[in-house]
Amino acid sequence: MVFSVAVAGASGYAGGELLRLIAGHPDLELRTVTAHSNAGQRLLDVQPHLRSLAHLTLVDTSPETLAGHDVVFLALPHGASGALTAHLPAETLVVDCGADHRLESEPDWAAFYGGDYYGAWAYGVPELPVAGGKQRDRLVGARRIAAPGCNASTVALALAPGILAGVIEAQDIVAVLAVGPSGAGKSLKLPNLAPEILGSANPYAVGGVHRHIPEMQQGLRWAGAVNPTISFTPVIVPMSRGILATATARLVPGTSAAAVRDAWERAYADEPFVHLLPDGHFPRTADVLGANTALIGLAVDEAAGRVVTVTAVDNLVKGTAGAAIQSANIALGLPETAGLSTNGVAP
Amino acid sequence: MVFSVAVAGASGYAGGELLRLIAGHPDLELRTVTAHSNAGQRLLDVQPHLRSLAHLTLVDTSPETLAGHDVVFLALPHGASGALTAHLPAETLVVDCGADHRLESEPDWAAFYGGDYYGAWAYGVPELPVAGGKQRDRLVGARRIAAPGCNASTVALALAPGILAGVIEAQDIVAVLAVGPSGAGKSLKLPNLAPEILGSANPYAVGGVHRHIPEMQQGLRWAGAVNPTISFTPVIVPMSRGILATATARLVPGTSAAAVRDAWERAYADEPFVHLLPDGHFPRTADVLGANTALIGLAVDEAAGRVVTVTAVDNLVKGTAGAAIQSANIALGLPETAGLSTNGVAP
Amino acid sequence: MVFSVAVAGASGYAGGELLRLIAGHPDLELRTVTAHSNAGQRLLDVQPHLRSLAHLTLVDTSPETLAGHDVVFLALPHGASGALTAHLPAETLVVDCGADHRLESEPDWAAFYGGDYYGAWAYGVPELPVAGGKQRDRLVGARRIAAPGCNASTVALALAPGILAGVIEAQDIVAVLAVGPSGAGKSLKLPNLAPEILGSANPYAVGGVHRHIPEMQQGLRWAGAVNPTISFTPVIVPMSRGILATATARLVPGTSAAAVRDAWERAYADEPFVHLLPDGHFPRTADVLGANTALIGLAVDEAAGRVVTVTAVDNLVKGTAGAAIQSANIALGLPETAGLSTNGVAP
Amino acid sequence: MVFSVAVAGASGYAGGELLRLIAGHPDLELRTVTAHSNAGQRLLDVQPHLRSLAHLTLVDTSPETLAGHDVVFLALPHGASGALTAHLPAETLVVDCGADHRLESEPDWAAFYGGDYYGAWAYGVPELPVAGGKQRDRLVGARRIAAPGCNASTVALALAPGILAGVIEAQDIVAVLAVGPSGAGKSLKLPNLAPEILGSANPYAVGGVHRHIPEMQQGLRWAGAVNPTISFTPVIVPMSRGILATATARLVPGTSAAAVRDAWERAYADEPFVHLLPDGHFPRTADVLGANTALIGLAVDEAAGRVVTVTAVDNLVKGTAGAAIQSANIALGLPETAGLSTNGVAP
Repeated sequence: MVFSVAVAGASGYAGGELLRLIAGHPDLELRTVTAHSNAGQRLLDVQPHLRSLAHLTLVDTSPETLAGHDVVFLALPHGASGALTAHLPAETLVVDCGADHRLESEPDWAAFYGGDYYGAWAYGVPELPVAGGKQRDRLVGARRIAAPGCNASTVALALAPGILAGVIEAQDIVAVLAVGPSGAGKSLKLPNLAPEILGSANPYAVGGVHRHIPEMQQGLRWAGAVNPTISFTPVIVPMSRGILATATARLVPGTSAAAVRDAWERAYADEPFVHLLPDGHFPRTADVLGANTALIGLAVDEAAGRVVTVTAVDNLVKGTAGAAIQSANIALGLPETAGLSTNGVAP
Repeated sequence: MVFSVAVAGASGYAGGELLRLIAGHPDLELRTVTAHSNAGQRLLDVQPHLRSLAHLTLVDTSPETLAGHDVVFLALPHGASGALTAHLPAETLVVDCGADHRLESEPDWAAFYGGDYYGAWAYGVPELPVAGGKQRDRLVGARRIAAPGCNASTVALALAPGILAGVIEAQDIVAVLAVGPSGAGKSLKLPNLAPEILGSANPYAVGGVHRHIPEMQQGLRWAGAVNPTISFTPVIVPMSRGILATATARLVPGTSAAAVRDAWERAYADEPFVHLLPDGHFPRTADVLGANTALIGLAVDEAAGRVVTVTAVDNLVKGTAGAAIQSANIALGLPETAGLSTNGVAP
Repeated sequence: MVFSVAVAGASGYAGGELLRLIAGHPDLELRTVTAHSNAGQRLLDVQPHLRSLAHLTLVDTSPETLAGHDVVFLALPHGASGALTAHLPAETLVVDCGADHRLESEPDWAAFYGGDYYGAWAYGVPELPVAGGKQRDRLVGARRIAAPGCNASTVALALAPGILAGVIEAQDIVAVLAVGPSGAGKSLKLPNLAPEILGSANPYAVGGVHRHIPEMQQGLRWAGAVNPTISFTPVIVPMSRGILATATARLVPGTSAAAVRDAWERAYADEPFVHLLPDGHFPRTADVLGANTALIGLAVDEAAGRVVTVTAVDNLVKGTAGAAIQSANIALGLPETAGLSTNGVAP
Repeated sequence: MVFSVAVAGASGYAGGELLRLIAGHPDLELRTVTAHSNAGQRLLDVQPHLRSLAHLTLVDTSPETLAGHDVVFLALPHGASGALTAHLPAETLVVDCGADHRLESEPDWAAFYGGDYYGAWAYGVPELPVAGGKQRDRLVGARRIAAPGCNASTVALALAPGILAGVIEAQDIVAVLAVGPSGAGKSLKLPNLAPEILGSANPYAVGGVHRHIPEMQQGLRWAGAVNPTISFTPVIVPMSRGILATATARLVPGTSAAAVRDAWERAYADEPFVHLLPDGHFPRTADVLGANTALIGLAVDEAAGRVVTVTAVDNLVKGTAGAAIQSANIALGLPETAGLSTNGVAP
């Protein structure tokens, strides 16, 4: 069976990546692509890399254009999907790549986003170890899914195994991420211009103000963390895609290095898309470019009393569009890996 | 008075940067440039960007070719300068850009470098706040100076003010640095090839094994830290130069944000090359490209209980060659800023 | 039917790209991967992005390890494949990604390469318009195929339609290519180091000495050119992959712009992988990253009397490994597009 | 004597580079910096790399704020300087970095720019060989100077020696330039966003429509060209700054390679900022980053019948702000090299 698909916000970077993955998916058929200011244009004029979709034209984003599909992916600015999805049938699978339905805590929403709060949907990070199982279980048969924030899911995947196993402390986590600028979308702002970013490393949202922080904490709470605290600093670096997350937590005193490694091995032993690298190996973002893979390197720094994880993901794939497709696969009863690659495009 | 200068290891990246700065220095006269495998070549064939030095030819590195200069800068591989400088007169100012004379602790040297230990020289980070003053005081009149490791001096500059003022804790420091690959020198190894680095973020020396860690600890001890511990992770990003250091430490409980900012303001208020940015501002590496400037952004993350510093330096200037020149200026009684720019080449 | 495959030279960039494409190919089964100095290593230690091939180990490159496969792809240094393939059965499909079997002219070989000459094989650029048809015809049923040089095939594809249609002159062609450094392979030479390439544009092989020139001329001769002359300049730019070829030729006097466009349209109207863009549109290399697509933009500059083509390819895919797979598909009677994508990974 | 200076358009990239160079100039004193939408801001908030200018605040661009200075540099959008300079005293040295006063031909202006035509000023490329001397001669004592277009001046410098000496033909010139995106300024348009440019080579203004073409032709006409024709294609590559121009022209039949080299040697033998590289050497843009230097590599391709030049400049220095300063130095009777460096910041 083939499921019909619409993608709203198909003119952006996340939308384009959804299209690229759907175009190669054996069980999804892309019928409708919508946009706002680009409506009426040939898709190829806006996404010139998607040659196999030359037949498509962007239409306006509305309940009407999105109606009648088995699956609707939303890649809209924050705040846009809440009202829109109220008009879609309950049996339609809706996967929102925006932030509107990620947070279970309304106070967190109010503190970090503001505006109307629409409630949380099933969170689209299947591999996340949670108390009693995996986040995957909550996605089976779901019809409303919130694809994760790329930074948040990367940090949660990196550290949840240690939280769950009780080998790292949930307080005083520190995460510093090297991220590519595609995460900011096609936003016409000065800091996003190429000369601002080429040859430079640029921090932003320093000091506890980034919107992904409560989402990280939520993911770790599901793994058992009580009142987790995270110092989070993202740094834009000159690569179009990719996140390299260095996430560290205090080692629970008395824990052996073997016990630490065992925690991560157990968490991800059978996962198709989250791989723990051997001792002494650490990933590069190029290794996962275009792939739905998260690669995790792990070290115990005895002198510093910290477990150090280094995790590489492609922010547009495992961080956004790939997570959306993978979650949709689960919800629809398809093979979880359908349409997704584990191999990166390197060099 | 003009001082005659020789640069040993003039064919490498650090050596080339020394030459670029010396070429623009009003009080230094470059007489001799030495190399190993490139000896005999025109300098311009090896450093084609140094057009004003077209008249120079590389000669062999030896006590004989280095003799007879007022100042000798060494930009040699680790382990090469110790034996060589034994042959240079005591009154010659020798500035070593290698690691051989940075560490006061022979056990640290043995643990992180190994081989013969030659003892520590005056450490070339003038602005470093140390108990009772500045590191600058130890450089006045010095004739043997160890230029700092670029990662180490950046982290020490970032955090020493808070240590000295007692507003941050010395245990459980976490530092993650985005660094350009020029810090690795002209080393013909696979990880240094352009296709390995373009479009990717690549960690290395993860988990407490990087050689700059004891040097960071030493700098913080001078500021009063007792048994400092540091989790340090460097990440190579695709920019030729630059370090963006995110260095965080636990806030001493009960300390106000104003007291934190005051500590850094006092430490660097009158420094020509180390600038604290206003509240809410953070630096980019492009802002210091080619400059001897370190820019520090500072935030207190109350929720995480941490002080976060983000510091930008050019690894080849403030991190190496500029620090060497600045320290030499002090040692020779020249204006400290002679031959050094505070303005970066951006964009 | 599934064909068994060996890849020789699997540790390099071209070899890695062959593996990535074969891993996603429905009709090819990768059995053997060989290398020289890396023999004995897990493939994943050398090609960490190829997660789906974690079960493979590199073995030595030899007639014995390559024997017994339906298809053997060679990604070896120039000069290495000639002797090796003499030991492989005639019925084995051998596709050489090196230069050893590209040139029909032994004097050209002697002038630009030198060493033993092994004769030309069927040239692996199916879409190339040649007198009386397409190069594709020569690949049907072939058992010895020479995958093209990436620069050469790009320029030939760009201009052959105009030669064949008689709308451009074959003398005084000028081609300037912006190319990524992955084309140089994992060669440990100073010009390939990241700091040499980041933030810089670097020409090489200027003035008529590049080895791909006779191959370009050969391709254009097949399209009918008599004594073509080409000024060819490649420029390394800081992107890991990609070729953007600006190739211009003199307009045959009296030719209309419509006749020019018509020549290219006819040549590539039904091609799955070579697309002529609409008037006024020009391609970017990001549009074809990871794809087997060549995108051609075309303009007639009446004032300059020249037809200007701008062509984007991924040097490792359409320029090398993708061309090899596509040609093998034809030779084996598989769908020509099997295992190959037209969609680029952008941004 | 020190000259007082105002810079209009100080918030842009060209304006920022003017400030950087003026800040290091011994004979210029920066008094006033003006902007449009950024007026009222601290300069450091807009140009955070210019640490030595922390005392300056941007004021509105107007005849009043620009009045009373010895020198006014304009770095304004095209069309803005014509009306403005009518209000400045004739004795004030005005150097316009925009296009408004570059073209002597009003029809060229109308065809490529349009809008009001304000007439040509002395063209700010001192080294340009022109019939009977150098363009420098026309700058002595000038009070109105048009700084050049970066692409145009690079191509003119590259080829004018051969035109003047009669060793290359002026018809059928082909120039393809790899250029950094800073040349487009801080323009908030989609093609200028970092994700569009990172990892990609992007052509623009293909096929004879770029505005710098008549300016190139004008420069070559001054060197003696009659009806020069130029096929010009600029390609944006992922480096913040720099132009690498491959400019080729047909060799006049019968000309020896020695005669060709001699033409360029004579043209630039004594120039401080334009250097011909030795035979077989070609420049990289990194060699001139931040420098006012143009490096030219030269080859004769006998087989192609073409002279090939490869020229590297920093578009913001020798291409714009450095040319402006150098020209101002000449006009004011200062040493021509004052405040300008020949050494690039590499790697």
